[in-house]
Amino acid sequence: MPELRKDPVTGRWVIIATDRAKRPTDFVRDKVQIRGSGFCPFCSGNESKTPPEILAYRSNGDRNGPGWTVRVVPNKFPALGIEGNLNREGEGLYDKMNGIGAHEVIIETPDHMMTLATLPVERIEQALWAFRDRIVDLKKDRRFKYILIFKNHGEAAGASLEHTHSQLIALPVVPKRVLEEVDGAREYYNFKERCIFCDIIRQEMESATRVITENEAFVVLAPFAPRFPFELWLLPKGHQSAFEESQKHEYQQLAAIWKDILTRLDRILDHPAYNSIIHSSPLPEASNDYYHWHIEIIPKLTKVAGFEWGSGFYINPTPPEESAKFLREAAVADPASTR
Amino acid sequence: MPELRKDPVTGRWVIIATDRAKRPTDFVRDKVQIRGSGFCPFCSGNESKTPPEILAYRSNGDRNGPGWTVRVVPNKFPALGIEGNLNREGEGLYDKMNGIGAHEVIIETPDHMMTLATLPVERIEQALWAFRDRIVDLKKDRRFKYILIFKNHGEAAGASLEHTHSQLIALPVVPKRVLEEVDGAREYYNFKERCIFCDIIRQEMESATRVITENEAFVVLAPFAPRFPFELWLLPKGHQSAFEESQKHEYQQLAAIWKDILTRLDRILDHPAYNSIIHSSPLPEASNDYYHWHIEIIPKLTKVAGFEWGSGFYINPTPPEESAKFLREAAVADPASTR
Repeated sequence: MPELRKDPVTGRWVIIATDRAKRPTDFVRDKVQIRGSGFCPFCSGNESKTPPEILAYRSNGDRNGPGWTVRVVPNKFPALGIEGNLNREGEGLYDKMNGIGAHEVIIETPDHMMTLATLPVERIEQALWAFRDRIVDLKKDRRFKYILIFKNHGEAAGASLEHTHSQLIALPVVPKRVLEEVDGAREYYNFKERCIFCDIIRQEMESATRVITENEAFVVLAPFAPRFPFELWLLPKGHQSAFEESQKHEYQQLAAIWKDILTRLDRILDHPAYNSIIHSSPLPEASNDYYHWHIEIIPKLTKVAGFEWGSGFYINPTPPEESAKFLREAAVADPASTR
Repeated sequence: MPELRKDPVTGRWVIIATDRAKRPTDFVRDKVQIRGSGFCPFCSGNESKTPPEILAYRSNGDRNGPGWTVRVVPNKFPALGIEGNLNREGEGLYDKMNGIGAHEVIIETPDHMMTLATLPVERIEQALWAFRDRIVDLKKDRRFKYILIFKNHGEAAGASLEHTHSQLIALPVVPKRVLEEVDGAREYYNFKERCIFCDIIRQEMESATRVITENEAFVVLAPFAPRFPFELWLLPKGHQSAFEESQKHEYQQLAAIWKDILTRLDRILDHPAYNSIIHSSPLPEASNDYYHWHIEIIPKLTKVAGFEWGSGFYINPTPPEESAKFLREAAVADPASTR
């Protein structure tokens, strides 16, 4: 018999199919392949084809020229505009505001053929520093209430350019899903005086059935009530509410475990398209005791997800215990180490 | 500049791109085409290939044989099981229960080549009666808290068989998205002592910019803050909290306007895949003053929806005023009439 499980943070129920569980090879999909043909505005040498850079780490070369390792530019087709004051207004019973915000692209490598799974750990670490630097800078702008950093990897996951990159959107409102999570965590804290994510980590590390990999500072879990097959959470083991407040050695550890888990996904699911999203505290109260930042990674394996959008009701054909087992057993050289 | 809009019921903010609005022809996608090749368990004559029928409307023939116009059968691969008692239990800080529920398939026509858009109005009306009859029957089972009726049309929307059909899932819990909507509507009612959907209908009919079509009993709107391009809401004009409590003449009117709007979508978007979902009150309080049942129709036009799942944050490239205009101007013979 299938099982109904409740996500402890948001209260969302999902159906986990336990009878006819789907294995990695049961999912039919296109492998993400980097072709490298055609013109790419993110490649070294084509810097003039993007808007002028906001930030770049470079050992040599000039601004908006080659020589960089990580480069941040405004999105050429931004979803939001950076100029102007926030104007909230009504329209009868409706509420709206002008689309103030920032929309940036973080290009993690000048090399078109690399992915986060194949980049060296120290280069991933540089990308994390770029995420942090941009957050720290944008936080000064009081118009913004939330900063969303995410990655669409592969066309099936919504990537429009194949050269690996992440996106940053700074918003004047807190997205609904984030608010749900923060509210759920706050309620638990009010009741227990403990962080719910800290409790989850403690329980998961004890039972170990859903733990995939860990290092000193981080752990990767298949969550108890995942919406999607092979959905993963990557969490700092110690309590930390905001991504940008991590210590230097933690970014190094994060880079190592992120590369580790993406390599495992590539092995077990044969280079799947995926979305990853950094969940961090909303800005006004970024430092707090109740929320725990983490990264959610969702491989794009199923398309039977149409009505889920409308109903918020998910049927997951792969129990997290199964997906954790597959990923745990994936042979990865140097698992989660920082070497 | 783009606009941020708030859904008045759930409080969800979305970004509406007003600058470079996408027109119907801008969306690249596969047209839904019925091929009719291969064996189909839903076709007349193949009744023995489905589990025994739960309900069928037939003018002639025997149970589980040909002669029916609408047929309801258990899903052969149910997401939930109907047998047993509900057992809620904990697992440390987690909550789960056994997967009790009903999962049925409503086959709206024995004719493989028809769709809801091409079926005669009186045959759609029969399908609506079947929906109602199944809800009325399942409501007697006190284990169920919500009944979800939805349709995946086309492979891109998650349909695994091309013969047109809807699905019914009876659940022992209320899905998260439904709860959000019901809670939002209840809060508005507590504040205003008016149904928020009734207020929306009133305001929309006055401004008319987002109204697409209407008849005596129903209206179809492009909602103010849609998540997806060409997202539509079909609502009863008068206050009504539960689908199954409609009057006989209302089902006739609903069948007519449903056919009308699906025909418009086929014209303007060239036979798109879509999901439609009936949003109705949760069972314990199905009759109430604050919630207003309706149907949401979401054409599957974009795949740039990966990170939306994780963040609940939507960027919609087509303002609802534009999609409403396109659909309003689609020439449909006999618009929304019941003839």
